Amino acid sequence: MKKIVPAMASLRSLVKLTNSVAISTRTMASHPLAGLLGKLNHVAIATPDLKKSSDFYKNLGAKVSEAVPQKEHGVYTVFVELPNSKIELLHPFGEKSPIQAFLNKNKDGGMHHICIEVRDINEAVSAVKDKGIRTLGEKPKIGAHGKPVMFLHPKDCGGVLIELEQE
Amino acid sequence: MKKIVPAMASLRSLVKLTNSVAISTRTMASHPLAGLLGKLNHVAIATPDLKKSSDFYKNLGAKVSEAVPQKEHGVYTVFVELPNSKIELLHPFGEKSPIQAFLNKNKDGGMHHICIEVRDINEAVSAVKDKGIRTLGEKPKIGAHGKPVMFLHPKDCGGVLIELEQE
Repeated sequence: MKKIVPAMASLRSLVKLTNSVAISTRTMASHPLAGLLGKLNHVAIATPDLKKSSDFYKNLGAKVSEAVPQKEHGVYTVFVELPNSKIELLHPFGEKSPIQAFLNKNKDGGMHHICIEVRDINEAVSAVKDKGIRTLGEKPKIGAHGKPVMFLHPKDCGGVLIELEQE
Repeated sequence: MKKIVPAMASLRSLVKLTNSVAISTRTMASHPLAGLLGKLNHVAIATPDLKKSSDFYKNLGAKVSEAVPQKEHGVYTVFVELPNSKIELLHPFGEKSPIQAFLNKNKDGGMHHICIEVRDINEAVSAVKDKGIRTLGEKPKIGAHGKPVMFLHPKDCGGVLIELEQE
């Protein structure tokens, strides 16, 4: 608490950001990859206490799915539906869960990855590789909802683990 | 790299999640707070290299704003527009930036907070306090775009810093 509160308190200054943020958006219509990045499909949050995290959103009136054990993948998943996107809660299943190391470093849980939709996963993978962005694996695999997905290396994405999922 | 790649590689198993995720969603229509949590307004990402992070999204064809120095708040902000939501890139401005401590712990940068819209900030703050969720500050303040916002204590939100912003 003592370590966190001062840092969080200082973050409060962020909320004062003025409404004069002049977004001088570059016109991207002519960019060869315009539209490659689609919707933010979900933000994935790893949690050490799935019931507590589920209840957090349920208690605030959100639509929250049941926990689904994904034995093969070593996680439980819970989806929190927001009007335009989703939060995916992840909790370890079994002893060799792929998210255990993350939780060992982040005892309270935390944001694990973001998932961005793309029109065509092969086109997207080719594009990111052309830009020197490493992928985790060579070829897309079938992910949630039966759609092909690919994870990008966080070292090449500003420290963020990004999942691309075909629309 | 060596430490990260195996962990990331193991995450690849996540992409195999079956399409049999049966979301047995609880009907929340009758929940007294149904609809309290609105759209995912943005995911904020702190970065040690704003140009590099901006270029990452620009190079993939996304609409990316110019960097705006928020001198008062000790950050530069850049917005990446996705069709349904935004990514907010944050970079320290000056020596006492509120995100410097985060970047000291996360050298490559990383996900800093998520922002969820609410219909009425006072109603939302009252609701979260009723649930025992601590807020950072007593009263909402004016945030980006001139709308009232409130940050929730990450210790009460599964390790995630959540910003509520009035629609």
